[in-house]
Amino acid sequence: MNKGLLVVISGPSGAGKGTIYSKVIERTGMQRSVSVTTRKPRPGEEEGVNYFFRTEEQYQQMIANGEFLETAEVYHNYYGTPKAPVFENLQNGYDVLFEVDVHGARSIKKKYPEAVAIFVMPPDFETLGARLRGRGTESEQSLKLRLGAAKRELAKYEMFDYIVFNDDIGQAVQDVLDIVNAEKRKIKNNIEAIKALLGQND
Amino acid sequence: MNKGLLVVISGPSGAGKGTIYSKVIERTGMQRSVSVTTRKPRPGEEEGVNYFFRTEEQYQQMIANGEFLETAEVYHNYYGTPKAPVFENLQNGYDVLFEVDVHGARSIKKKYPEAVAIFVMPPDFETLGARLRGRGTESEQSLKLRLGAAKRELAKYEMFDYIVFNDDIGQAVQDVLDIVNAEKRKIKNNIEAIKALLGQND
Repeated sequence: MNKGLLVVISGPSGAGKGTIYSKVIERTGMQRSVSVTTRKPRPGEEEGVNYFFRTEEQYQQMIANGEFLETAEVYHNYYGTPKAPVFENLQNGYDVLFEVDVHGARSIKKKYPEAVAIFVMPPDFETLGARLRGRGTESEQSLKLRLGAAKRELAKYEMFDYIVFNDDIGQAVQDVLDIVNAEKRKIKNNIEAIKALLGQND
Repeated sequence: MNKGLLVVISGPSGAGKGTIYSKVIERTGMQRSVSVTTRKPRPGEEEGVNYFFRTEEQYQQMIANGEFLETAEVYHNYYGTPKAPVFENLQNGYDVLFEVDVHGARSIKKKYPEAVAIFVMPPDFETLGARLRGRGTESEQSLKLRLGAAKRELAKYEMFDYIVFNDDIGQAVQDVLDIVNAEKRKIKNNIEAIKALLGQND
């Protein structure tokens, strides 16, 4: 059996990577990864479904044990992707899809170089600015910061394998689906099937 | 502007690469390459449309000048792919699609390593045998030879980038279209666009 693919969707805030992620999950049998967090469960959130909830002490121990593919601190809470369930899915032939920021994508690529990293980019920075402004939740100051960050993130394009321009959301989702299908057709992801064929009639 | 893609469809005789090639040309704006040949024009064939017709002496001179991406002799006639028009198309941003045997694919990869080489394979060798038998034109002896050749060709899988299993022709065509789209989304094929974006707002 061929191993599953680990696919990472990343890109600047406002590029639409969350929407693309949800639609790709919806249209494929790809697995989500469940994050570990130190923040308290909200009403209705279930252990192992929404998150694995851990104390900060437990979390620090997991970091020390090297149990994370990536980890980040956001507003005094930790969020991280545990390696074990992801690697188990991949070994069992399931594809896993991630949505992470550029920092997280770099960390995953470092720990699992076979990961397929896709950078989602708005058509241009003006469009990104307009979209962020359209949310109505950003001050001009924070908007400037976000645009600056977006540019610094795109400047790291060399660590990514693909770039998808999110001009039309339907096309962007299709581009990601095509990338996943193409990756599944790569020779290196079919060695076992090919060897079986060659052995089969020897 | 991004350079065009050179995509090579190859695989054993009977795998259906010719059908896939025609359908992909039909559904995309990809360019065919016009071959050079030493065989005589048939009624209705036009210079520069069906083939570039050359004498054997001219052809040998072209070989000596290194003008071919690949060249082969079939029943005492030569057939070859001239580099110049292909490279001109690629430079102008047009994608070019080839259908060649495994020998030709190797030659193209050697002269143009950026070429995307796709191996078209029937689901298994029994199916290939049944398809060849179904043509009704193959003796058992020639069928055996073809199956042996197919196996030796698949054994060269490492020179290819992708493998498409032609179980269902519609799906196989879609796989090739997805591969082409994914290749266009590769970072290395978007460097100029990315640099323009980064420069644009500097």
